[in-house]
Amino acid sequence: MHVAIPLYPRFTALDAVGPYTVLAFAPGWTVTFVAAGRGPVQDDQGSLNLTATAAYAEVPRPDVIVVPGGPGTLEALSDQALLSWLAEAHEHTRWTTSVCSGSYLLGAAGLLRGLKATTHWGVLDGLTSFEAEPVSERVVEQGRVITAAGVSAGIDMALTLLAKATDAGTARSVQLAIEYDPRPPFDAGSASTASPELRAAAMNLIH
Amino acid sequence: MHVAIPLYPRFTALDAVGPYTVLAFAPGWTVTFVAAGRGPVQDDQGSLNLTATAAYAEVPRPDVIVVPGGPGTLEALSDQALLSWLAEAHEHTRWTTSVCSGSYLLGAAGLLRGLKATTHWGVLDGLTSFEAEPVSERVVEQGRVITAAGVSAGIDMALTLLAKATDAGTARSVQLAIEYDPRPPFDAGSASTASPELRAAAMNLIH
Repeated sequence: MHVAIPLYPRFTALDAVGPYTVLAFAPGWTVTFVAAGRGPVQDDQGSLNLTATAAYAEVPRPDVIVVPGGPGTLEALSDQALLSWLAEAHEHTRWTTSVCSGSYLLGAAGLLRGLKATTHWGVLDGLTSFEAEPVSERVVEQGRVITAAGVSAGIDMALTLLAKATDAGTARSVQLAIEYDPRPPFDAGSASTASPELRAAAMNLIH
Repeated sequence: MHVAIPLYPRFTALDAVGPYTVLAFAPGWTVTFVAAGRGPVQDDQGSLNLTATAAYAEVPRPDVIVVPGGPGTLEALSDQALLSWLAEAHEHTRWTTSVCSGSYLLGAAGLLRGLKATTHWGVLDGLTSFEAEPVSERVVEQGRVITAAGVSAGIDMALTLLAKATDAGTARSVQLAIEYDPRPPFDAGSASTASPELRAAAMNLIH
């Protein structure tokens, strides 16, 4: 199974690297980071550079696409090279997926019309601009289109996808290999239970 | 607060990028990826390249060190440039931390003598080689030395560290910003409850 993860300036690193690590650990799976051209792409913090090892034109038919989110999504909404590649590659994928605001890019490529979808809690309502129905869930499956909530949700999405694409045993072995037995020190990760003050403080960190 | 994350060939990407994302989101924190020289460093899957933007000599006094693990740890145990930098920088850090087999490198630099420490479940016993006491916990704090269990445990460790270094409110806001409300699709991430077959299958994925 060949997975392509498109990178664009100011993506959020964990959106890409969470699913990457899950899927790249699976036996027989390969993952390629793609962009308009080969070379390093800088993240939203300006301090991490991940290398795109192939241009879009070199990876026209991936089996799986994982689109990361990040503050750079806004500019990427008018990146025609990315959107055209997404729309064309999607015609042949087995799964087309996103993490966080990456679903906005699926939407801009016309892939979410009439579908339920999710994204980061802070920008959930905006999915209606793409004729999608916003759903506040960790992972939303709509046939071969799967969207995940904010940043860290990509890990859960990738394990879910891996189980569908292979079998539960493979997903479980990867989960144990990456010791994904999460123990967050606080119960603060869900917007549904956060105070307005905490939500404001969190949104303040995203830029 | 300035965080340095050393990279070496065949590190595991999520070990580095999990804590990176948590700490880089915190207001006033900056993170630098360091290595023997500037340039891209390839991960354990051979398909991800993360750029070291500074050489060790350029970052002699970070406030925090986070050492990732990975299959490349074995070769890195004889990387004198890395081990010397770790030992010298540690004298001045506020916290020196590791994820997964990164604790072996802390051990090889002489930083775990007489301390409790943890690492990936598959290599836990080996910590005794460094005169450390292996502990099967998600995050182990010993003063300013903090070690985390395998791969994904770095996210929990970084949130714990962030709360200690700043306050619980800051850590909670970052947790909400990255929507870290984990919902693993399987209960398979802990070696303590895994079958021998699942443990063998997971270890088979690590190479």
